[in-house]
Amino acid sequence: MRNRPETLIFDVNETLLDLEPIKKSINKALKDDGAAEIWFSQLLHYSLVESITGTYHDFSKIAAAVFRMNAEKRQIDFSEEEIREVLSPITRLPAYPDAEKGLSNLKNAGYHLVAFSNGKPSVLKEQLHFSGLEVFFDQVLSVEGAGKYKPHPEAYNYALKAARSKAAKAMMVAAHGWDIAGARRAGLQTAFIQRPGKQLFPLAEEPNIQASHIEDLAEKMTQ
Amino acid sequence: MRNRPETLIFDVNETLLDLEPIKKSINKALKDDGAAEIWFSQLLHYSLVESITGTYHDFSKIAAAVFRMNAEKRQIDFSEEEIREVLSPITRLPAYPDAEKGLSNLKNAGYHLVAFSNGKPSVLKEQLHFSGLEVFFDQVLSVEGAGKYKPHPEAYNYALKAARSKAAKAMMVAAHGWDIAGARRAGLQTAFIQRPGKQLFPLAEEPNIQASHIEDLAEKMTQ
Repeated sequence: MRNRPETLIFDVNETLLDLEPIKKSINKALKDDGAAEIWFSQLLHYSLVESITGTYHDFSKIAAAVFRMNAEKRQIDFSEEEIREVLSPITRLPAYPDAEKGLSNLKNAGYHLVAFSNGKPSVLKEQLHFSGLEVFFDQVLSVEGAGKYKPHPEAYNYALKAARSKAAKAMMVAAHGWDIAGARRAGLQTAFIQRPGKQLFPLAEEPNIQASHIEDLAEKMTQ
Repeated sequence: MRNRPETLIFDVNETLLDLEPIKKSINKALKDDGAAEIWFSQLLHYSLVESITGTYHDFSKIAAAVFRMNAEKRQIDFSEEEIREVLSPITRLPAYPDAEKGLSNLKNAGYHLVAFSNGKPSVLKEQLHFSGLEVFFDQVLSVEGAGKYKPHPEAYNYALKAARSKAAKAMMVAAHGWDIAGARRAGLQTAFIQRPGKQLFPLAEEPNIQASHIEDLAEKMTQ
């Protein structure tokens, strides 16, 4: 490909790991099959509310706070401990079936592979260990190092600096329209992974690459 | 009350106006009773994605784009015209039954009343006209004047400047935890209106006042 990037920066949740176990746990606890999707969307919203007003709590704290809001709305009571339990599957998410082979092929092709998540460092580390994906990454980064959540430009700039990469030589790989939009505006190349139910944001610039999964991405990046 | 504010800045959607008609329209179009809630949450999220990356499209454009993402996810096709039609009830929302009396009482008590919405100016104007609430406001402001969505501090600063009010002499009135969180951090006093299903964000500072509706707020503000 033209202007081949050197560094591939991977979003983790929903891009590499399947959120299904935590979604099931939340839907069961809140007795509503649509609860987890609202929770995740609000978690993303409130993380930006914090970044935009100069506040920072780690992603797990915001996740618990937003869960509590959704529980109160349904008038269901949970202790702090119970909320931790409901959200605990976050560290035991399976990798999508294409992730291992795809990452392996990209690594063998010489790319510098970085995991870069909104999740807090300890959770991110456990996630990559449990899913078996940790071996593929040269670096594992959390936005906590930047103190700003994706898609804040400071988050991408932090990752680029940590990876010693220029924006134009890096590509953000994500299954979220907002991550693609933000990375593109921060000057990175972008690759959108078409996970089930995930769409590009129609008002943002198109990604450089669209792939149906990580093996497909690897094929496109190694031609 | 101590440190009585002079200016009351009201959020509009869900604080004064009931979103039910547009929620029904969206749920029907997407054949899913939970669709509108996800749509609204994503609309708020993507408005901040834009503000955080230095982009601005008006709220109606983002609303339509996010609707399209949700339609694609369900593999339902809509033309631009059809999406406009689905979202058209936004200008025909009823005021909550307490809004008229509450605003009237606050106006009679000498407060300077400002409407301040993420919505685009023309929509906001139509909303206040249709609902009959326009007569109570000394000023009607959209974040479009700031080019940043609430809860960006620049949005509140724009409203304060337009209202010729100091932050400490102004109070943001809203049914959304994120609006309360942002206004408080911008130095305004805050009043949370406990609309059905709406919660404060547990990681933010508490509001100065909590009221079950606008008449209740008026009672508390005129003691």
